Amino acid sequence: MEKQICRTAAAILIGNELLSGKIREANLFDLAKTLRAVGVRLERVSVIGDDIDVIADEVRAMSGSHDVVFTSGGVGPTHDDVTIEAVAKAFGAAVETDPTMEGLLRDAYGERITDGHLRMALVPHGAHLATTPEVMWPTVVMNNVWVLPGVPEIFRMKLAVVRDWVQGNRPFVSRAVFTKMDEGDLKPLLDTVVESHSTVEVGSYPKFFDPTYKTKITFDSQKRACVDAALEQFLTLLPDGEPQSVD
Amino acid sequence: MEKQICRTAAAILIGNELLSGKIREANLFDLAKTLRAVGVRLERVSVIGDDIDVIADEVRAMSGSHDVVFTSGGVGPTHDDVTIEAVAKAFGAAVETDPTMEGLLRDAYGERITDGHLRMALVPHGAHLATTPEVMWPTVVMNNVWVLPGVPEIFRMKLAVVRDWVQGNRPFVSRAVFTKMDEGDLKPLLDTVVESHSTVEVGSYPKFFDPTYKTKITFDSQKRACVDAALEQFLTLLPDGEPQSVD
Repeated sequence: MEKQICRTAAAILIGNELLSGKIREANLFDLAKTLRAVGVRLERVSVIGDDIDVIADEVRAMSGSHDVVFTSGGVGPTHDDVTIEAVAKAFGAAVETDPTMEGLLRDAYGERITDGHLRMALVPHGAHLATTPEVMWPTVVMNNVWVLPGVPEIFRMKLAVVRDWVQGNRPFVSRAVFTKMDEGDLKPLLDTVVESHSTVEVGSYPKFFDPTYKTKITFDSQKRACVDAALEQFLTLLPDGEPQSVD
Repeated sequence: MEKQICRTAAAILIGNELLSGKIREANLFDLAKTLRAVGVRLERVSVIGDDIDVIADEVRAMSGSHDVVFTSGGVGPTHDDVTIEAVAKAFGAAVETDPTMEGLLRDAYGERITDGHLRMALVPHGAHLATTPEVMWPTVVMNNVWVLPGVPEIFRMKLAVVRDWVQGNRPFVSRAVFTKMDEGDLKPLLDTVVESHSTVEVGSYPKFFDPTYKTKITFDSQKRACVDAALEQFLTLLPDGEPQSVD
């Protein structure tokens, strides 16, 4: 398999437990940081339940509209683990047992192995297996869809595979200015910067109950010179005594 | 405004910072628990950026496919706060200043008020304002879409309004069994229960590194008798020494 060069990404977080409030979603933040670090723009995330047709529809739609898609959850031996079947269905592929994964499972479980365990060797026909020296268990990649686990400890380990195999065309540059001004007063200054620097994403984040600043202004782009120019212009617009700090 | 009786819900979490890994999403879990507690099924959540057209399309789609929709984020005075405009656009409504909210803002800011602050009095034409004794600042409700803030501390306060005004037709009942069996061994037992109790949602959640149990099995439905029957059947299928506990 070759390294996948991607510009945009989507993620599909799967599990009834995330929607019923049984479990706090814990994978989005690490995935978002990982993709940002490799220069891929995460544009959309869906959280949906353990339903084959709902997942298949979502995978098909996201796979068409984004360069790369990550699923999290719904992989495992039980009846509510339907992600592999759904990814296969999304692409009209059959599900089959992968001999490499079956071998790994038989080595792990020995004589105790059950049909349930062997379900974890199922892959959509035509899928690739991505591995990396740090992560022994292969990751299933069907076309542009990466099937990742739901359990956060394992999900985080698997991000090493993503870092090794998925790459944007340029890294993001992000800088920040901290001020004690409130957003209502900052608005005209920000409007000026946004108007002159259309390629820079300018964010404004109020912070409550922090003695060191009130609003954090961020400047993001895949071009460092543009970020620097927008930030410099913003600094010239600030009144005396500001900013509190610049990152 | 009358209490809204709803069966299904969707949520739209808005903000570039959630997708770029700048900020950890922190509202979904509390919203999910709140909706579960009032008996409304949260079926789908989307996380999207601060883009009027993307938000408007999402609001329109979700509003049509679910009984009630909650947005979080993108409300405030700056250029990246576009949720109100997007909700208005979703329904082809104009945006106008609400006199009640303008009055509250003028009371709060006095002579220091700016045009930026006054943007927080904008509402889609035809919106309702929901209030509750605990939360003074009104919540904008446009048709079946509730516009909630992104800042987690304020979002959590606003859930009091949701609890007061949104109601499902019956509460959910959830029970759980904890076992030291692994999912591969549990699979045939679970398949039997799932087959005989099609109205009960059966979940299986492995836990790593917990000395007290290995897998938690949950039984959920809006009918208590069905949950109890599924759980009782599951208990009869367990081998000697199980379960570790029942909730």
